[in-house]
Amino acid sequence: MSALAPGSVIGILGSGQLGRMLAVAAAQLGQQVHIYSDATGPAFDVASRHTVGSYEDTKAIAAWAREVDVVTYEFENVPLAAAAAAAAEKPVRPGARALEVAQDRLVEKQFVASLGLPVAPFATIDSDADLTHALQQIGTPALLKTRRFGYDGKGQVRIAAPSDAATALDQVGRAPAILEGFVDFEYEVSVILVRDLGGNTVSYDIPINTHVDGILATSTVPSPLPSSIASKAVEIAERIAGALDYVGVLAVELFFVGADAEAPLVVNEMAPRVHNSGHWTLDACPVCQFENHIRAVSGWPIAPTDRSVDAVMTNLIGADVNDWQALAADSDTCLHVYGKREARPGRKMGHFTSVSPKTQS
Amino acid sequence: MSALAPGSVIGILGSGQLGRMLAVAAAQLGQQVHIYSDATGPAFDVASRHTVGSYEDTKAIAAWAREVDVVTYEFENVPLAAAAAAAAEKPVRPGARALEVAQDRLVEKQFVASLGLPVAPFATIDSDADLTHALQQIGTPALLKTRRFGYDGKGQVRIAAPSDAATALDQVGRAPAILEGFVDFEYEVSVILVRDLGGNTVSYDIPINTHVDGILATSTVPSPLPSSIASKAVEIAERIAGALDYVGVLAVELFFVGADAEAPLVVNEMAPRVHNSGHWTLDACPVCQFENHIRAVSGWPIAPTDRSVDAVMTNLIGADVNDWQALAADSDTCLHVYGKREARPGRKMGHFTSVSPKTQS
Repeated sequence: MSALAPGSVIGILGSGQLGRMLAVAAAQLGQQVHIYSDATGPAFDVASRHTVGSYEDTKAIAAWAREVDVVTYEFENVPLAAAAAAAAEKPVRPGARALEVAQDRLVEKQFVASLGLPVAPFATIDSDADLTHALQQIGTPALLKTRRFGYDGKGQVRIAAPSDAATALDQVGRAPAILEGFVDFEYEVSVILVRDLGGNTVSYDIPINTHVDGILATSTVPSPLPSSIASKAVEIAERIAGALDYVGVLAVELFFVGADAEAPLVVNEMAPRVHNSGHWTLDACPVCQFENHIRAVSGWPIAPTDRSVDAVMTNLIGADVNDWQALAADSDTCLHVYGKREARPGRKMGHFTSVSPKTQS
Repeated sequence: MSALAPGSVIGILGSGQLGRMLAVAAAQLGQQVHIYSDATGPAFDVASRHTVGSYEDTKAIAAWAREVDVVTYEFENVPLAAAAAAAAEKPVRPGARALEVAQDRLVEKQFVASLGLPVAPFATIDSDADLTHALQQIGTPALLKTRRFGYDGKGQVRIAAPSDAATALDQVGRAPAILEGFVDFEYEVSVILVRDLGGNTVSYDIPINTHVDGILATSTVPSPLPSSIASKAVEIAERIAGALDYVGVLAVELFFVGADAEAPLVVNEMAPRVHNSGHWTLDACPVCQFENHIRAVSGWPIAPTDRSVDAVMTNLIGADVNDWQALAADSDTCLHVYGKREARPGRKMGHFTSVSPKTQS
C-alpha cells in the first residue's frame, strides 16, 4: 500500500473537463498524466501523454495500463471489460465494482437498497406489461429511465398518467429501463466524499444543487440542510463508499424530503468520480476534489476539506460561455473555461464560482 | 486593445516551473499554451504544444510567434533579438524594454535611480582600476555582481575589505560587473504587482522573504512591514511598472531599512515575470499571480488580489523534495511539486504553503 512518489504516471480514462481538472491537480503534485480516450478532448491540453483508442479495445487498454502506475477514470461508463483489462496490469481506483454499480441504474438502486439506505420505489422494466404493472404498484407521477448511459437528464421521461406508458417506452427507445417513483423533495444536495486506500474518509461541505433541463445549473455552499441531516448524508455516502471498498472521490446525490419525514434523505444517484457539484472546491478550499482524488488514487494521505469562503458555482452551458468577458471582469468571480472548441447547446463549456466571506462554519 | 478570447494561444518562452504554473493558469481560463524552450522542461507536461529551439534562433522564434496570439516569458534572460523577432509578429508582453532593463544589473540600477527611487550606491566595474576606485567611493562591505545572468545568488561575491578586490574579480570571471554598496537592511520584502493593458494595477499583499545560500527560502504573508511603508513599496513598484509601460506581473524586491530611515525602502532588484515570492498566492488568493499574468497578457481585466488566509511559502530545494510524504500528510500544507526528473542540489524542486486563518486584513 505504498504511495506513488512524485513523477509517477496517473492513467486517466477519458479526456473531458473532469479529466482536464484531474490532470492539472496531478501536475501540481508532480505526477505525470497519461490520458486514454476514444477522441481528442480538453484534457489532452494539460496531460504529458495521451493515447487515442476505443474503450472496447482491451488490448490497447492493457498496453496503455502497462505504461502507467495507477488507472483512474473521469466517467462511469468505462466498459467493464476495459476496467478488467487495465486491472490485470495495474491498480484501478476506484475499483470495477463501483463502475458496475454506477453504470446501471437498476444495479445501483438494488445495491443502495441492499445497504438499507432509502431510495425511491423502483421496478425493472423490460416490456409494456412490466411498465403497466409497475405503474400500478408505484403510481404516478413516475420517471422512466434507461438503465444505462443516462446523464444530464438524458434517457429519462416523466410519466404523468398510466396512459403515457407506451409513449414513454418509445421515448426511451424501448431500452432496458427502470421505473422510479416520484420523490416529492424540497431540494437536492450532494455529498462529495473522498476515501483513501486505508479506508479513511473526508467529505466536503454539502452543496445544494439546482438543475435546468436536467443539467446541473448551480451548486451552493453552505446549503440550508440542517446540520443533523448533513451528518446523516455523510453517513450514507460513507456506507456506500465502504461497501464498495472505494478509493477516490465519490459523489452521492440525495433528495432532501424534509427534516420530519420518515426518511429525510433519499439517495438519488451516485457517480464514482469527481463531480460537477464539487467544482466550487477549486476556489473555496485549499485542496480541491481533483487534488484529493489524485491523492487517494496515488495512495497518498487525503487532505482536509475545510472551506475558506462561501461559494456559488454556476455552469456555463453552450452559449453561456460567450459571457466570458463580463465574468472575467466580475471581481468576486473565479472563471473556468474548459477549452472545448465548439459551444454546442447543452454542452458544459465552463463554470464560474462566485465567492464571498464565509458566513457559517 | 481587444481581449484574447478563450481558445487563444499564449506563447511562453521558457519551460521551467514558472512556465508550468503559467500554463496551468492559462488552461483554467480556456487558453491554449505553446511553449518555446531550448530544452525539455516541466512546463511541457501541461502545455498543449511545445517547440524546442535555441533562443538565439530568431527565425525559429519568429515562426513560433506566428502560431501564437501573444508572447510572454518566464525568465528575464530572453535575448533581446529573440524578443524583437517575436515582437515583429505578435505582441510581446511584458515588452522588450522590461527585458532590457532587467537582464543587466547596471542598466536596471541606472533605470531605477533615474526614476528618483532609492537604490544602493553602485558603480560600473570593467577593470581592476574601476574596482579600486569604486571601493574607495562606496566602501566595504560591498557586493561585486556580474551585470548579466545572475540569479539565486550566482555571479556575486561579497567584498569585505579592499584587499579582496582582485580575488573577487577573478571569482566573477572578470565579466562586466557592478559594485553595490552594502545595505544594512532589517529584512527583504517584495511587491508582486500586476498591470493590465489599460495601465490599471493591483498588488498582492507584500511578503517578507528569507534566503539561504542566496536562494529564496521562505515568503510569508502578512509581513511585519508597517502599512504606511507597504503603501510606499507599492508606489515604487507602480512607478517602475508605469515607466516601462508594463503588462503582466512584475516583481520588485525591496530592502526594508527601517521606518525611521531617510529612505525606509531600497530597491534591490526587479523581475519582469511571475516570481517565486508570489507562489503563496496559488493557495491563499482566489486569483493567483499566474492567472493574473495570463489575464493581463491576454488583455483581460486583472482580478482582485485579496488574500483569504495567512500563508508561509517554503521552497523545496534539491533533496528537500524527498520529504513529500510528510508534507502531503500535513493537514495545513498545500504541496506543489514541479515534476523535474532530478533533484540536483540548489535546484528548485517544489514548494509548500502552510496556511492558517487570516490574522490581519
